[in-house]
Amino acid sequence: MIIDGKALSNQLDVNMKQEVADLNATGLYPTLVVIIVGNDPASQIYVRNKHRKAVKLGIRSIIERKPADMTQADLLALIAKYNADDQVHGILVQLPLPKQIDETAVIRAIDVKKDVDGFSPENVGKLFANSHEHYPVSCTPKGIMTMLDHYNVNPEGKHAVIVGDSNIVGRPMGALLLNAGATVTYTHILTQDLSSFTRTADILVVATGVAHLIKAGDIKPGATVIDVGMDRDENGKLVGDVDYDNAVRVAGNITPVPGGVGPMTITTLMQQTIELAKVANRRVLTSVH
Amino acid sequence: MIIDGKALSNQLDVNMKQEVADLNATGLYPTLVVIIVGNDPASQIYVRNKHRKAVKLGIRSIIERKPADMTQADLLALIAKYNADDQVHGILVQLPLPKQIDETAVIRAIDVKKDVDGFSPENVGKLFANSHEHYPVSCTPKGIMTMLDHYNVNPEGKHAVIVGDSNIVGRPMGALLLNAGATVTYTHILTQDLSSFTRTADILVVATGVAHLIKAGDIKPGATVIDVGMDRDENGKLVGDVDYDNAVRVAGNITPVPGGVGPMTITTLMQQTIELAKVANRRVLTSVH
Repeated sequence: MIIDGKALSNQLDVNMKQEVADLNATGLYPTLVVIIVGNDPASQIYVRNKHRKAVKLGIRSIIERKPADMTQADLLALIAKYNADDQVHGILVQLPLPKQIDETAVIRAIDVKKDVDGFSPENVGKLFANSHEHYPVSCTPKGIMTMLDHYNVNPEGKHAVIVGDSNIVGRPMGALLLNAGATVTYTHILTQDLSSFTRTADILVVATGVAHLIKAGDIKPGATVIDVGMDRDENGKLVGDVDYDNAVRVAGNITPVPGGVGPMTITTLMQQTIELAKVANRRVLTSVH
Repeated sequence: MIIDGKALSNQLDVNMKQEVADLNATGLYPTLVVIIVGNDPASQIYVRNKHRKAVKLGIRSIIERKPADMTQADLLALIAKYNADDQVHGILVQLPLPKQIDETAVIRAIDVKKDVDGFSPENVGKLFANSHEHYPVSCTPKGIMTMLDHYNVNPEGKHAVIVGDSNIVGRPMGALLLNAGATVTYTHILTQDLSSFTRTADILVVATGVAHLIKAGDIKPGATVIDVGMDRDENGKLVGDVDYDNAVRVAGNITPVPGGVGPMTITTLMQQTIELAKVANRRVLTSVH
């Protein structure tokens, strides 16, 4: 089965658009602020796509475009302004940032209740401790969980192998799967005999940025294969970390690139914006009554 | 090789005693507050042992013994008092707490800079994101890292398998080993065919509370086996989660029970108290100059 992230994303968008309209009718306007510093072309595209998606769903989207020579103090002041604005529910600073700005300091400055990317230590800690509170989670792995759920892939008791242990994808992905009852193996650049691990995976999530790292022979027959890669092959064609054309004959379920994980990341960002707005609203109602 | 946690702990204690004396000479007095609520017998013993160790090393130890019917508000007020006291560097609330008190709320109330057990979401998040700042870490897994280092077991590129995914031992243990470059597999109660995982482990850490769960046949020849269990067998004898008498013939390195992991946990608590005192002192010096 091909896991169609684009179709699922479109379906979720329809539901979200209705939900936002319903929330608006109660006076709640989910609002996302995206701050972009400098002119990185890829970042410009990501930010534009986020804005378009938000507008499409009726989510209020504020884009703050700042020059590449912005000081860290000015960026922190801008974040503080939106932290204090109770009409704003999610704040996202597009990475990477220019060299004069400390990314860690910036991520820490975002109110953990508006940390829509789930990158703050407090939200990461809640994820890793399987807290039962509400907390935002890094969007790509959370979107993958939504895909698994939609395609009835239950991680409980399965062996999930993560290839690539980044803080944005691999590590939170493993925590989500562990919290869902999977046996989880983290593999990475220092792993020896990678294939000996991937071949035992019932669920294989690959996020390395290495085009076609995973071949058909590295996959357990029937496994669910999730490819987070967005790489270019020698001809400049967009490909994933998995050799899709051959892997598709071995895997039980597999995401294509493009059209797999990619569309789910932005959709998850929108879901979390709505969720943070609802949680903030409950907090206000509780404090009033 | 038998990994002698007791001997290593004694050796580290000698160094720490000297370090505390040196710090005292500069006017810095590492201070640990332990709060115990109620009369749980095991907790009473743990608290007594922590106090004795602190006193032995010259660390100031304040034990707050409170009745079992203490209110949560009173406990939070007590924590707030020590949070505000800059002569106190570490605060530990002995778990479990009586039913009327929410453990999560209590752990969250401890200043993250004094969270000597490393249980706060912020410190857990820093661990899981492999932050390069200083942060306290749960003492048992951190003590195990000290043992591995002392016995020249380098996790980099090795396969580490964790049995038991608790927030106090298994999860932070896996994060520490991942941060040290190991391939890490988390197994737990829902894992199917546990032995197929443990038999591939170069480093096997077992923390389940199930006496003799791991047999010699579950161990890769030459592996390093760390047994966190403190269980009673059918005769009431203190045993570990590993069938030591048989496992010792297969393992390359192995911790006994007792005398393995246990002594390292309290020693690590003392190390972290001293470390937090030094970090706090640097913070004061930086803010003054």
